[in-house]
Amino acid sequence: MQQTALIECVPNFSEGRRAEVIAQIAAAARSAPVHLLDVSSDADHNRTVVTFAGAPEAVIEAAFAMCAAAAALIDLDQHQGVHPRIGAMDVIPLVPLRGITLEACAELARRLGRRIADELGLPVYLYEAAALRPERRSLAAVRRGGYEALKLAVERDPDRAPDYGAPKLGRAGAVAVGARMPLIAFNAYLNTDDVTTAQAVAKSIRESSGGLKHVKALGLLVGGRAQVSMNLTDYRQTGLFAVMQAVTREAARHGAAVERTELVGLIPQQALIDYAVDALGLPAHARRLTLERRLGEAAGDYRPILFDEQ
Amino acid sequence: MQQTALIECVPNFSEGRRAEVIAQIAAAARSAPVHLLDVSSDADHNRTVVTFAGAPEAVIEAAFAMCAAAAALIDLDQHQGVHPRIGAMDVIPLVPLRGITLEACAELARRLGRRIADELGLPVYLYEAAALRPERRSLAAVRRGGYEALKLAVERDPDRAPDYGAPKLGRAGAVAVGARMPLIAFNAYLNTDDVTTAQAVAKSIRESSGGLKHVKALGLLVGGRAQVSMNLTDYRQTGLFAVMQAVTREAARHGAAVERTELVGLIPQQALIDYAVDALGLPAHARRLTLERRLGEAAGDYRPILFDEQ
Repeated sequence: MQQTALIECVPNFSEGRRAEVIAQIAAAARSAPVHLLDVSSDADHNRTVVTFAGAPEAVIEAAFAMCAAAAALIDLDQHQGVHPRIGAMDVIPLVPLRGITLEACAELARRLGRRIADELGLPVYLYEAAALRPERRSLAAVRRGGYEALKLAVERDPDRAPDYGAPKLGRAGAVAVGARMPLIAFNAYLNTDDVTTAQAVAKSIRESSGGLKHVKALGLLVGGRAQVSMNLTDYRQTGLFAVMQAVTREAARHGAAVERTELVGLIPQQALIDYAVDALGLPAHARRLTLERRLGEAAGDYRPILFDEQ
Repeated sequence: MQQTALIECVPNFSEGRRAEVIAQIAAAARSAPVHLLDVSSDADHNRTVVTFAGAPEAVIEAAFAMCAAAAALIDLDQHQGVHPRIGAMDVIPLVPLRGITLEACAELARRLGRRIADELGLPVYLYEAAALRPERRSLAAVRRGGYEALKLAVERDPDRAPDYGAPKLGRAGAVAVGARMPLIAFNAYLNTDDVTTAQAVAKSIRESSGGLKHVKALGLLVGGRAQVSMNLTDYRQTGLFAVMQAVTREAARHGAAVERTELVGLIPQQALIDYAVDALGLPAHARRLTLERRLGEAAGDYRPILFDEQ
């Protein structure tokens, strides 16, 4: 059965405190027929993550409208927050959910980026699957040094010139537009206010320092607590159970423990189901033993999020 | 929106070894347009649990056909197994899933029981929500002493006379027909072959001995391992996390640990999601943060299993 294409967009913008501004930017997504699924603001990070989904053309339209609203309402010269960022509409990832490939989402991201540069006059960087330069597959590389460093470097360093738009940052900064598979943004709070413990845990578990594959991690101080802030970029390969085991073990090496955790935005339900199966010591096939899944399969309307079975 | 009524039927029959017999009985469910969702056989318990679902009339028809097949193919005088049982088709619970009440399922169970007694000549006991006598709300009370004890008692003891049918057990035994809410059948294997440890754990966690509400538990020896065999009869009140904490703690008091677990039949997905949320230390509202749920709610086709939100 040919499925209608469904994509998700998870823009992050650099405002997590002023409710009025957050509401205006989120409302801009409603300029196209998309499903607004979640708005998660974090006052410490001073950052908001919006999740919406719909048909590709509608999602592109809504993302453009949000970007225009964010650029008009956020001044990076006034923005403070612990999370790395380069712009008002900091990052716009497009995610295939059903009936569309990652490569098709990458093409959509390039079209969206071109339009943002042309019509809003913002410098645009294409990242991950949408990247035009291999070194820009990494979002961390694109955002290196944040807004303040990029503002200086963009005019002098050809390696940091945008993919689209003029090499100059105004108060709305730059925009990273990309395509990627679904990820899980997951934070663990430790029972300490010592940020160096969170940093040590983050360093030992993240792929870039030789830790777990498909895991990015930073140690931060959030609300007076050491926080290990993580992205699981392929939860089907490295899931929540493996990550929590590693965080717990490394925290214990520093005399600390995980107090609680949180999600930023939404999570594919299979990631929670897989965690439960692993943590309970259930056999692997138990992940398929839910009543809802069997009912959906039997009735022919089981519609998993993309690639669930691959 | 008025929903089409959907019910589940989870008959247990007393054969878990002879594949040919199991296949014939399961196939009998296909005599009506139901969705056959799962067939779980256990050779040690010598017992099979079938799960199917559909519209009420179709489910009743399929359950009757399976009961007829089981009565023809299984001889309780030849049956051995560690699980308590009173008949070939030992127990037939009807479970409301969507668009129907528990009381309506109880009425359907009584109709089905009447037909089994009239057309198959089997003694029928009505239990849980379908019970006509208050003391038969408990399935354990109905099955007390198993087939062997009931065979003797049924003819002499008016308290053990069936609700429908003659007070006499043939080789197919009796049938318990009932209605109940969804339950989770969940077993934990301990790292010991000492069945008394499993029995002690079971006793300390089950409601009937003053343990956790909505938990039934037995200690068994299965495959050379001590097994705590549990039913969670209201997982929204007492979930997998609370149960696993209790089993782990009580096992540790006897120097044992949980080695692995298993499900018998299917599980409502929210029970696994809730376990993950609890075990990860996520905030309670995270149970609603799945992408699939938000998408379904936004698109108006989110259809949880009955009572999910109540």
